[in-house]
Amino acid sequence: MASDPLSITFAALADPTRRAILARLAGGDEATVNELAEPFAMSLQAVSKHLKVLETAGLIVRGANAQYRPCRLDPEPLDNAVEWIDRHRTMWRGRFDLLGDHLRRIQQQAADAAPTRTTTNTKTDLEKPT
Amino acid sequence: MASDPLSITFAALADPTRRAILARLAGGDEATVNELAEPFAMSLQAVSKHLKVLETAGLIVRGANAQYRPCRLDPEPLDNAVEWIDRHRTMWRGRFDLLGDHLRRIQQQAADAAPTRTTTNTKTDLEKPT
Repeated sequence: MASDPLSITFAALADPTRRAILARLAGGDEATVNELAEPFAMSLQAVSKHLKVLETAGLIVRGANAQYRPCRLDPEPLDNAVEWIDRHRTMWRGRFDLLGDHLRRIQQQAADAAPTRTTTNTKTDLEKPT
Repeated sequence: MASDPLSITFAALADPTRRAILARLAGGDEATVNELAEPFAMSLQAVSKHLKVLETAGLIVRGANAQYRPCRLDPEPLDNAVEWIDRHRTMWRGRFDLLGDHLRRIQQQAADAAPTRTTTNTKTDLEKPT
C-alpha cells in the first residue's frame, strides 16, 4: 500500500464504515469509540481498527483522556484530496470545452461557406407540387 | 476491500502511479499501455494491473482495438468522490462558523453588560499620577 499522504487519505476514505464515522463527526461533536460503534454491527475492536486508520491519515484527532479518547474530525487532509481531484477533472473538462468550441467553429465555417446550396435545396422543396 | 462504487473510486485513487496515469490522461489525449508505462520504472504487466483497477472503477475507458486498447479518462466517478468530501467538510466548517459566531456574540454581550467597570478602570488609570 502506498505511503504518501494523498494515498493514505484516499485509502482511508475507501471504506463505507470509515466514511460513516467521518460523516457523524462532521456534525461537530466529539464521540467515543463506544458511541461511534453503536450504529454498526461490528465489534469494538473492528471499529477501533477503523479509527486507527482514520487517525493515521490525520482525518481524526483523539483526546488525551486515556479511558475514552474522544474522537473529532480534522478536515485538513480532505482539502488536499479535493484539490487533487478538482485540478484534474477541470483540466479534462477544460480540454473538452476547447474541443467543443473548435467543433462548433468548424461547423459554422462549413455552414458559412455553403449558403447557396442550402438556399437552393429549400427553394426546390418549396416549389415542389404538393 | 469494500465494493461500493465510492469505495472503489477512492481505492483506485489511493496510489501515486494510478494518479499519475489519470493526470496524464486528464490532458485529453488517449494513450496506449506502452505510452502510459514509459515514465514509470515498472513492468508493462504492473502498469496493466493498475489500468485494470482504474477501468474497474470506471475512471478510464479502453478502446476496442485488440492490440493497443488505448485508454482515455472518464471523470464521472470523480464527481461523486468530490461531492462526498465537499458535503462533509462544508458540514464541519459550517458548524464551526456557527460556533465562532456564537462565541463572538457572547463576548459582545459580556462587553455590553460591563461598560461601567471598563470606564471606571480607564478613568482610574488616567487619574493615576504618572
